[in-house]
Amino acid sequence: MATTQFGKETSERGEFVRQANRFTQRITADGSSGWRAEPGRYRLVVSLACPWAHRSIIVRRLLGLEEAISLAVVDPIRDEKGWRFTLDEGGRDPVLGIEYLSQAYLATDPEFTGRVTVPSIVDIESGTVVTNDYPQISLDLSTQWREFHRPDAPDLYPADRRAEIDEVMDPIFRNVNNGVYRCGFAGSQQAYDEAFTALFGELDRLTERLSGQRYLLGDTLTEADIRLFTTLVRFDAVYHGHFKTNRHKLAELDVLWAYARDLYQTPGFGDTVDFDHIKRHYYVTHDAINPTRIVPLGPDLSGWDRPHGRA
Amino acid sequence: MATTQFGKETSERGEFVRQANRFTQRITADGSSGWRAEPGRYRLVVSLACPWAHRSIIVRRLLGLEEAISLAVVDPIRDEKGWRFTLDEGGRDPVLGIEYLSQAYLATDPEFTGRVTVPSIVDIESGTVVTNDYPQISLDLSTQWREFHRPDAPDLYPADRRAEIDEVMDPIFRNVNNGVYRCGFAGSQQAYDEAFTALFGELDRLTERLSGQRYLLGDTLTEADIRLFTTLVRFDAVYHGHFKTNRHKLAELDVLWAYARDLYQTPGFGDTVDFDHIKRHYYVTHDAINPTRIVPLGPDLSGWDRPHGRA
Repeated sequence: MATTQFGKETSERGEFVRQANRFTQRITADGSSGWRAEPGRYRLVVSLACPWAHRSIIVRRLLGLEEAISLAVVDPIRDEKGWRFTLDEGGRDPVLGIEYLSQAYLATDPEFTGRVTVPSIVDIESGTVVTNDYPQISLDLSTQWREFHRPDAPDLYPADRRAEIDEVMDPIFRNVNNGVYRCGFAGSQQAYDEAFTALFGELDRLTERLSGQRYLLGDTLTEADIRLFTTLVRFDAVYHGHFKTNRHKLAELDVLWAYARDLYQTPGFGDTVDFDHIKRHYYVTHDAINPTRIVPLGPDLSGWDRPHGRA
Repeated sequence: MATTQFGKETSERGEFVRQANRFTQRITADGSSGWRAEPGRYRLVVSLACPWAHRSIIVRRLLGLEEAISLAVVDPIRDEKGWRFTLDEGGRDPVLGIEYLSQAYLATDPEFTGRVTVPSIVDIESGTVVTNDYPQISLDLSTQWREFHRPDAPDLYPADRRAEIDEVMDPIFRNVNNGVYRCGFAGSQQAYDEAFTALFGELDRLTERLSGQRYLLGDTLTEADIRLFTTLVRFDAVYHGHFKTNRHKLAELDVLWAYARDLYQTPGFGDTVDFDHIKRHYYVTHDAINPTRIVPLGPDLSGWDRPHGRA
């Protein structure tokens, strides 16, 4: 029963295979990459709905980079021309002067035909895309923009623990962050079953890990927590129903639910969550799995503010 | 954003409007209707997936009518020709000798063009449909087949409480039994929103009612409990995700969840539930709302056997 509804990103076995990130240049502290970290030079384009973009929003906030790097927020609903700046006056980003993020992509690579993604960092002067390489973007905010961090900024990717952090993040990416998409965009029952099993197997391992410590790396908040959070916060709101990740709700997994609430109630996390954008984006944009485009009124989200008891 | 994907059963405002039951003759104890209650004369055709049919399966079992009225079980997946007898040898019901329930409908009314539904009661000798009028079918099993009930059969529709039972069942039908379908088959956001609000408003009222008493009518199990049960037992398995009835899972609504478990653990209830048929029916048959036809692996259903504490 393989289908090809997700086109170029579906394998013959019906598995969702995420496209590679097209633009992978890096912004560096010393400018050796050709792009120097400089306040006011770049625009970070995000969707508040997107878990990949949400990472960079949280990191930017935690590090106090709001003044150094400005933010452009796209409409949560992506149409056939991609992400749009319809939330801005005149439907145009006031800094970049474009209506669609795809315009920046085409200004950078006129041959580009893939899916336009967020986050993207655009060089304001040239209007070209420096990078849409989301895993590197958030790490570089931590390591290459240090000069512009706020005084007490946390070190989210400390040099002496990077190997360990990478090791924790790797299965979280495969089975959880991307795993929920592999469930939702599976083109065959078998591909879905495999993704579902991998997802909940990973959530069970994470439950065990987080039973005895506050954060993934112990007592210290790191990039790994941010990456897990952006999936967990969307879990009950969209993935559980829309992507069929429904063995349990997050709210039924006591340890992970308390862990996620702990983060949610930390400045930089919950205050960057927009459940309205999240729900409308997924349910309206993916009409291949939700042809009616009706957005559920549930779930009741009031539990996010309840005490978590993990401090 | 009204759609007409559910065809003849969608109003202009996008509301799901269930078709009327086509065959409404009654089987009576005295035969005055032309159809006398006689053991071995009729065949009850059901889907184990269908909540309307499930009522009659439970009532038949509680009253001990298994010998008097035989049961035909259709394939949980309904194709364009309707309910099929593919679970039987040769794909044919061994008693009625037909492959599709629609054959009995057409034998009764050659002009019939509606949706073929379960439960249906077929007169075995003529092969014609006596009734598919599900609310009357289960009541008549209680009131017209009394001569053939088992000795200690409960009175599920006692004469002196009928007005009260009817009064309780009426909003349950509108807001819950049919309400979940009005959520899932809504053709507009507004129609969905209204159905969702009515559904959870009713569940809240039922929670209050059932906080102080074991059954809907007090200490005694009645037809009303059976009707509520057949929706509740499907709630987390299908309605919550597939029909977007997702303010909470049943498992999050403590009173209703304990009430439903109490019934589930009563002989005649849980032993007539087939979650495999239920899940495959909804997710595979309704491709207008689940075009991939992928059947979720969740939810974890092990909680149904947990103690309910209501006795």
